[in-house]
Amino acid sequence: MKKADDNKKIFYTIVFLGFLAGILKIIGGVVYMSRAVLVDAATSIANILSLIIIMYFISMSRRPPDADHMYGHLRYAFGGDLFMLLFYSFIAGILLPDLVNSVLKGYKVDVYASVYSFSGFMTYVVVVFLTRRIGRVFEIYRKMTYIELVEGAVATISAFTGSLYSFYLDLAGGLSLYSILVFEILSSARILLLDISDVISEEIIKIVSEEITRKGLRISDMRLRQVYQGVYYGEIIIMFPEDMSLREAHKIIDEIERTLSKRNIYVTIHPEPSK
Amino acid sequence: MKKADDNKKIFYTIVFLGFLAGILKIIGGVVYMSRAVLVDAATSIANILSLIIIMYFISMSRRPPDADHMYGHLRYAFGGDLFMLLFYSFIAGILLPDLVNSVLKGYKVDVYASVYSFSGFMTYVVVVFLTRRIGRVFEIYRKMTYIELVEGAVATISAFTGSLYSFYLDLAGGLSLYSILVFEILSSARILLLDISDVISEEIIKIVSEEITRKGLRISDMRLRQVYQGVYYGEIIIMFPEDMSLREAHKIIDEIERTLSKRNIYVTIHPEPSK
Repeated sequence: MKKADDNKKIFYTIVFLGFLAGILKIIGGVVYMSRAVLVDAATSIANILSLIIIMYFISMSRRPPDADHMYGHLRYAFGGDLFMLLFYSFIAGILLPDLVNSVLKGYKVDVYASVYSFSGFMTYVVVVFLTRRIGRVFEIYRKMTYIELVEGAVATISAFTGSLYSFYLDLAGGLSLYSILVFEILSSARILLLDISDVISEEIIKIVSEEITRKGLRISDMRLRQVYQGVYYGEIIIMFPEDMSLREAHKIIDEIERTLSKRNIYVTIHPEPSK
Repeated sequence: MKKADDNKKIFYTIVFLGFLAGILKIIGGVVYMSRAVLVDAATSIANILSLIIIMYFISMSRRPPDADHMYGHLRYAFGGDLFMLLFYSFIAGILLPDLVNSVLKGYKVDVYASVYSFSGFMTYVVVVFLTRRIGRVFEIYRKMTYIELVEGAVATISAFTGSLYSFYLDLAGGLSLYSILVFEILSSARILLLDISDVISEEIIKIVSEEITRKGLRISDMRLRQVYQGVYYGEIIIMFPEDMSLREAHKIIDEIERTLSKRNIYVTIHPEPSK
């Protein structure tokens, strides 16, 4: 309970600091005219909103199995990725007309853009430290905040050199950050599609096969799939001598099912009498 | 083969006409300054690109089961929905800054906007007729083109009245169409999440339960899930007298599995000896 309360405090602090960083960067981008800082500001805001979306769907995914979700609600956690990606895509759309305009017409960057960008960057350094102190759930989010840190540095440098020499330097930074954003959206969407496709790794197939063959049994057919990271379900047809009693066969089956379930592999075994 | 060739011709004609309608609407929206026609133009273009995206993922989903996809690739068809939604979200983002600007600063609509919008609308009428002639695969797409037709009508009327009386009428049309777009994205994303969540309907549970109980058998445990529209997989534990031979139990099990598979319900049955 103490731990959960601490996590909550850290979570709210992260959200607050994230929005603060976003606002500092928006001032740098809009008021002091840096495209690099503006793109970075938009992804910072998206980053913090994503955290809230992810939290919501993770809590949803923890509901136990029920009548219309017999395998549980684990896959609702993918709702976090789905809505997060839609939001990032929306942000990418919002930024586009202004970037096109900037390429066509040019602009002038104020040196203050880099000052605000740097303040936002420093705020994010604190966020990164805080995410290290909370649970495993935030693994993906943490990776994203590291990227956010690199992007903040790129934005600050682009705005600074852009204000000293030419707006082209700032624009180059902005367009690079924008390309990274679009690339990240597309590659994350591909990973999401793979995750929901009932995929299975060679490693899990090997664990299951070995568990059965080392009992001297033969697999006739098998279907396995990953439901969520680290959780697997499946069906296996195993050959048994046809004169074996149901009780005997069942005892062996039960043992295999129990051993595999300890590794989060939940299988149903169908005994096939061999001729 | 003749049928497939015909479908291909119709498909290319739809894509061509869709882009033509999009271009007519973009001229109406950008050159003749109608926000309603502009929003409609963007969704028309998104609509046609979605058709291409959907086709690609449907062909992917038809690949047979393999080592890392033991349940087949059916779920890759959801990639069509996923990337389509990301694209619509991107379009919604692109439209936003201009809409905000129009609300703040106002503008003047030219009557030609409604003429181009109407031409685009008539082109879409032809598209709707053509989609009626191709396969079931396009069910969802067809529904979307009907919405597209209604939106085209709203855009034409908004632009026409907007050019005669006040830009507010055109803006109201544009904002309405935009709200529909955002609403459609969010509700489609929720449906997608449900579709990938291993959900199961009462109807399928009933079919399976009845098939087993009418054989005088008792279900001890059961897990069923929808893999894709109309295709179900599952695992069932059924109680059998413990002195029954494996051969006998297997015969009954096989019969149940075969009967259910005729309705696209593929189950693996585990026989549990009852004391």
